[in-house]
This record gives sequence, structure tokens and C-alpha cells, in this order.
Amino acid sequence: MSSTTPVAETRQDRFERGMEVLTRIDEEAGQKLTDALADVAPELGHQIAAWAFGEIYDRPGLAPRDRQLVTLGMLTAHGGCEHELDVHINISLNLGLTPKEIIEALLHSAVYCGIPKALNATLVAKKVFGERGLLPMTTQ
Amino acid sequence: MSSTTPVAETRQDRFERGMEVLTRIDEEAGQKLTDALADVAPELGHQIAAWAFGEIYDRPGLAPRDRQLVTLGMLTAHGGCEHELDVHINISLNLGLTPKEIIEALLHSAVYCGIPKALNATLVAKKVFGERGLLPMTTQ
Amino acid sequence: MSSTTPVAETRQDRFERGMEVLTRIDEEAGQKLTDALADVAPELGHQIAAWAFGEIYDRPGLAPRDRQLVTLGMLTAHGGCEHELDVHINISLNLGLTPKEIIEALLHSAVYCGIPKALNATLVAKKVFGERGLLPMTTQ
Amino acid sequence: MSSTTPVAETRQDRFERGMEVLTRIDEEAGQKLTDALADVAPELGHQIAAWAFGEIYDRPGLAPRDRQLVTLGMLTAHGGCEHELDVHINISLNLGLTPKEIIEALLHSAVYCGIPKALNATLVAKKVFGERGLLPMTTQ
Amino acid sequence: MSSTTPVAETRQDRFERGMEVLTRIDEEAGQKLTDALADVAPELGHQIAAWAFGEIYDRPGLAPRDRQLVTLGMLTAHGGCEHELDVHINISLNLGLTPKEIIEALLHSAVYCGIPKALNATLVAKKVFGERGLLPMTTQ
Amino acid sequence: MSSTTPVAETRQDRFERGMEVLTRIDEEAGQKLTDALADVAPELGHQIAAWAFGEIYDRPGLAPRDRQLVTLGMLTAHGGCEHELDVHINISLNLGLTPKEIIEALLHSAVYCGIPKALNATLVAKKVFGERGLLPMTTQ
Repeated sequence: MSSTTPVAETRQDRFERGMEVLTRIDEEAGQKLTDALADVAPELGHQIAAWAFGEIYDRPGLAPRDRQLVTLGMLTAHGGCEHELDVHINISLNLGLTPKEIIEALLHSAVYCGIPKALNATLVAKKVFGERGLLPMTTQ
Repeated sequence: MSSTTPVAETRQDRFERGMEVLTRIDEEAGQKLTDALADVAPELGHQIAAWAFGEIYDRPGLAPRDRQLVTLGMLTAHGGCEHELDVHINISLNLGLTPKEIIEALLHSAVYCGIPKALNATLVAKKVFGERGLLPMTTQ
Repeated sequence: MSSTTPVAETRQDRFERGMEVLTRIDEEAGQKLTDALADVAPELGHQIAAWAFGEIYDRPGLAPRDRQLVTLGMLTAHGGCEHELDVHINISLNLGLTPKEIIEALLHSAVYCGIPKALNATLVAKKVFGERGLLPMTTQ
Repeated sequence: MSSTTPVAETRQDRFERGMEVLTRIDEEAGQKLTDALADVAPELGHQIAAWAFGEIYDRPGLAPRDRQLVTLGMLTAHGGCEHELDVHINISLNLGLTPKEIIEALLHSAVYCGIPKALNATLVAKKVFGERGLLPMTTQ
Repeated sequence: MSSTTPVAETRQDRFERGMEVLTRIDEEAGQKLTDALADVAPELGHQIAAWAFGEIYDRPGLAPRDRQLVTLGMLTAHGGCEHELDVHINISLNLGLTPKEIIEALLHSAVYCGIPKALNATLVAKKVFGERGLLPMTTQ
Repeated sequence: MSSTTPVAETRQDRFERGMEVLTRIDEEAGQKLTDALADVAPELGHQIAAWAFGEIYDRPGLAPRDRQLVTLGMLTAHGGCEHELDVHINISLNLGLTPKEIIEALLHSAVYCGIPKALNATLVAKKVFGERGLLPMTTQ
């Protein structure tokens, strides 16, 4: 169901729609997130699902893989978002970005964010790639 | 003694005035801070007490509880300040912000700082609330 | 209507609910925003109204005035958000923060964001206060 | 000539290689940049051409269009980079990102950077699109 | 009078001590600053003079010229602080940093902050150097 | 060999030149870095050596010790760069900045970056100084 549908939805409908999107791109991320927030900030969990994924991520104007390139750029620029980078490097792999493209995007970030932030992000990629058996990368 | 007093003060007077303010809002934070900095940067410890708390924090124009709302916003926006967020979420509770208000402020921060920084800050709140036996939060 | 209502809403319902909230706190901001975005990014305008104001801002857990304190902290910390600070200093005045409280919050920000960002934000406040005939401030 | 060539190059060779890349993606940007820096920081102009474009941008591992998605994310996250956003929104259009994809990427940035930075970046896009006769965008 | 003096000082003493430091490094900056803030935030003006310059800047452990190198790094990293960069590039010249050293520091910043922020800061230096008749720089 | 030499160099020449610079200022940092990146992002390791150290760091216009002052300012301002601060506080000591100058630079950063980032950076300095047997610092 498109986010531009004129159909009326309840809060619960919107949450379920978002969780469906999130689960499609990462089988476990949605459940982990709502579990982590359940006893302290369930509304944040609701909004991440219902809004971030249900309303924005699922829009047709930009391919999911392309969204991940933008996201990798933003999280690298922020600094201090290693956990989110971990999640989003996994999602990027799930959505078809190759390890080589991800590493190249992070090298590219050195130009716009400087070496320290590019290096921090690359070490997160190293951790994720290691966990998924993708190391060593073949010679570039 | 007000910070606008015309009375002359020594460096030591100003330090003690600041420590008094800091200890009033968090019984242990001032001592922990000066201990941590004693062998490496005692002047930074002095300035945090004498200036940040003695000169600025104690001014009458904004209630301590309100200062904490501004501070939670700034630390969330910075990113990478998890330790200071921990200290200031504790101080916020000490000064009368309710857990619900704190969580709501961090949810609000998602609008202005984005989801990743709001999520990071919320997980610090979860840790602090857990340590103080405030979890689970009642249904929002 | 509360954001936690189980009632089903259409996109248009949600937009209207958000615009109502936004217009209540600043008579012109909502219309100006949707006008500015109409020919380039109407969906961003929609989401600012429907999500930021309709879903988050209007929640009961934190008073609107308190939300503005958090927001002033975040926008000051970001830097480079002078336009949004202008809008939000106006909203803060509309919602009952006094000029003195706003200036005190920005002075407080010097402790956590440093002098340059506190100064930049204060000069925006000076502009807004001047436009609203609030200068000179009475002696602090 | 690939950046991984074993062929020896002089500083001048490397500068020319980078200017060729830069001029290919934006006919005027390279010349404008070196002109602006000629009397104050010619080495910065050299490095932007020789390193950023000659060494990094031209690498084969990530398509130029994809690099622009990462770049739009980073510049939006930084804040205060309106001039560079202007240049890179133009380059993005030159390299085949559609106006709709750019606007969607900036809407997406609201999730990760917050509304104020997404809004600032979108207003730069509005300016660039206006200059290039791309407004109004067709209904999304 | 050293900041470590045991002598008691009033608020006014401390303000005057700071203004003396600030005026020594930039003949006009202190007066301009207090004038700009007089009708809106005189306490911020007081603290910039009394604390930033009277307490911190004047300490003997780091030469004023060296402080400016740190400051140029921080302001470039922040982004969105063009006005403060303008002031501090002027102060840097007053304190004996050569134009070449300043430009080299900003080139160096490209490595740690990325090209866009280095470029923004360099264009501020160009403006300041132009106003002081220092352009063109001799060949580097 | 100066970076302004007209002599042609291969990629390998440039890498070796950079590694020589890096090894000169920190005996182990270059090898550790290339080892850490070898299986995931060797090109980033190459560029850090060949560009950051071979092209920029080694330029004659600013003394290595002075470069470190700028770098400490930038890394403190970024936040979230504790690992790089660790490396660069070590390099700063290797290049002749005294512990006292480093601590003073970080105290100075409180004025421009705020207390939290100054505190975070100072705690990294404490760790490095401890590892190098430089604690306690003599009374300031």
C-alpha cells in the first residue's frame, strides 16, 4: 500500500506497515529495535517504524539501495553513530550494495568529512564484513 | 551569594561557590569530576565548577529544571557525548524532570536531530533509568 | 484529537491536524512553509506538518514551552540553522518563554556548545526581539 | 588513465588529470574554483583537483551518480555548506540524478539529520532547480 | 595580574581584566562585541570578556599565537562560524601568525574536516587578507 | 623530496614517501594503520599515507608541532573521534608539544567547543599521559 493512499489508517495500521518495510530490508532489525525500546520509549520505536520506514523509506521516488548511499554519507558525517552505521551497513548489503561499493563510498567520504570520520566508518564496515564472512576483500 | 554581587572573591571563593551549586544538583558529580581531573587537568575541573556552575548555572533567569531541558537538547545534538548525557539525565531527574518528560524531550529531538542521535540518547536514558529502578516506564 | 487515538485517519486528516497545531503556535509559519516548499518539495511540507507537529509536537508528555527549550538547545548546537532559530525564537515567545529566559538559555548554551555558537544564536535573538519591539532588554 | 596506473606522474600531470574529471562533471566548476583560490590558496585548488577529483572521484568502484548521493547526504548532515550543496546539486543533475531523486534524497535526510538540515538543503535545491528552469516540480 | 592570583576580585575587576586582554590582541573586537550585545545579552558580553579572555586566554601555559592555531582548527571544524573565523583570522595575524601559516593550517584542515569546510574557511581568509591588503599571496 | 618537486612519481613512490613521513612522527602508527585496513580498505590506507602525510603534512609552510595544535582543535570539535585523538596526542608529544601545552590547548577548547567536548578530549589525554608515565602533571 502506497504512502500516498487516500485510505484511512489507524496508528496500528501505520506501525504494521512500517514494520513490514523494516523487516523486508533487515529480518531482525525491527524486532530488536522495538524490543530495546519497549520498556523505556515505545513511542520512539513506533515512530521509527511507522514514520521513518512506513512513511519515508518506502516512498517510490528513490530506490532503497540509493537511500542507503545517502544514509551512509549522513551517518559517517555525523560521527558518534557507530551502532547505526553497523545496522545500515548490514541493510546496505541486504539491499544489493556490494562490499566494494560500500568501501568506496566510505573512501569517498574522506573528501567531504575528513579522514578521521571516514576511518571510523570503515572500521565499522570491517566489523560487519567480518561477521558476514566477507573478508578479506579482493584486491581493489 | 548571587553571581552579580559586587563583593570581591578569590579564585578559591569562586570554586567553592561552584562546587556548592554542583553538589546541590548532584551529590557526587562534583567530587567525581575534580577527582578524575586532579592529576591531569585540575584547571579544567576548577573552571567547570567555578565558571559553568558558579557563574552560569546558578543565575536566576532560568530555572535549573529548564536549564536541563536545554542541556539535553544540546548533548543529544552533539552526538558522542554519552557520558555527559548520563550525568545530565541523572541531574535532570534530581531536579524534578520526570522520566516521562525526559523521554518525551528525546523523542522531540528526533524531529530536530534525526533518529540516530535521538535513539543514542534514549538508550543512555534507558541505562540511567534502569540504574535508578525506574523501568519499565508506565505505558505512554 | 490525541495522537494516540485509535481512529483511522487519511493523509489529509493528518496534514490538517498538524497544520492546526503549527498555526496555533505561530499564525503564519505553517502557511509560509508550505508555500515555500509547494513547487519543489511538497512532501517535505506535508511531513513537517503531519509528522513533526501533528504526531510529535502535540503529544501531551511535555509542555510546548518546554519543547521550545529543548529545540533552542538543539538548533544552537547544530550551528548553521539561523533561519530555524529565527522561527523558533518567535514560537518560543508566542508560547510564553520570556525574552529573559531565552537569552538565559542561550547564555547557558555557551557552557555546552562554546562561545561561537552561543553568540551566533544570541544575534538571531537580537534580530527577532528587535522586530518585535522587545529591545532594549531591561538590565539583567 | 586509471588512478591505479603504475605510470609515474608529475604534480602537473595529476592536476590536469583531476581538472579533466572535474570539468567532465561540471563544465565551469573547476575553473571557478581555481580562479577563486588563485591569489590566496592555490595549493588547496591543486589538491581539490588532483586529489579529490583525480585520485578519489574517478575511481571505478562507485558510479559518479552514486557518489553524488553520498555527497548530498554528507553535505546535508554537515550544515553550513550551502555553497557546496549548490555546486553538488548541479553536479548531481549533470550526472543523471533526476530532480525527483534529489528531492527524495533530501526528504530521506530528514530521518537521519532532522528537519532543519533537510529543510535548509531543500531550499538550496529549490534555488538550483529554479536557475535551471526545473520548477515547478510535477506533482509527487 | 595572573589568573591564578589569590587576590580577591569583583565582577567588574574581572571584566576589565578580560577586556584588557581582548583589546591587546584586537584593538576593536572587545568594544564591538560589548556594543553588539549591550541591549540584548550584556551578560554574554561580560562572560566572553571576563571568562574567555580574562580567565582562559591569558593563562601562561600556551602562547597566544598557539591558541589561535587551535582556534582556527575548531572554528573550521564547526562550520557555520564564518563571522568568528573572520575575527580570529584577524587576531591570528595580529599575534604573528603569517598569512602563509594560516593558509597552510586551513589546507591541513582539509585532511581532518574534509574539503568543504576547509574551502569555506579559506574563503573567509581570502576576505580578511583582501581587507588588509595581503593579496595576492606570494607563490607557495 | 619536497611535495612541490617536478619529478614524476608512481603511486608506490608516493605511498613510500608518505609512510616515511608518518613513521618519522610516530614509529608504529603507519604500520598499525595499514595493517588494520589491509583486508578491508587498502586504498584508504594508501591515501592516508600518500596524501594526508605525503602531500599535506610534509609541506614546509607550517611546523609539524603547529599542525598538531590545529589537529587537536579539530578532533576535539568533531566529537566521537577519541581513537584519533589518542593517536594525535601521542604524535603531539613525539613532536615536542609538552603535556602542559596539550592540556592547555584542551582547556582552551572549552571556550570554543563547550565543556563536554573539552572534557572528553582531556580524558583521552589522561589515558595517553598515563600510558607514557607522564602523570601526575606537576601543579599548574
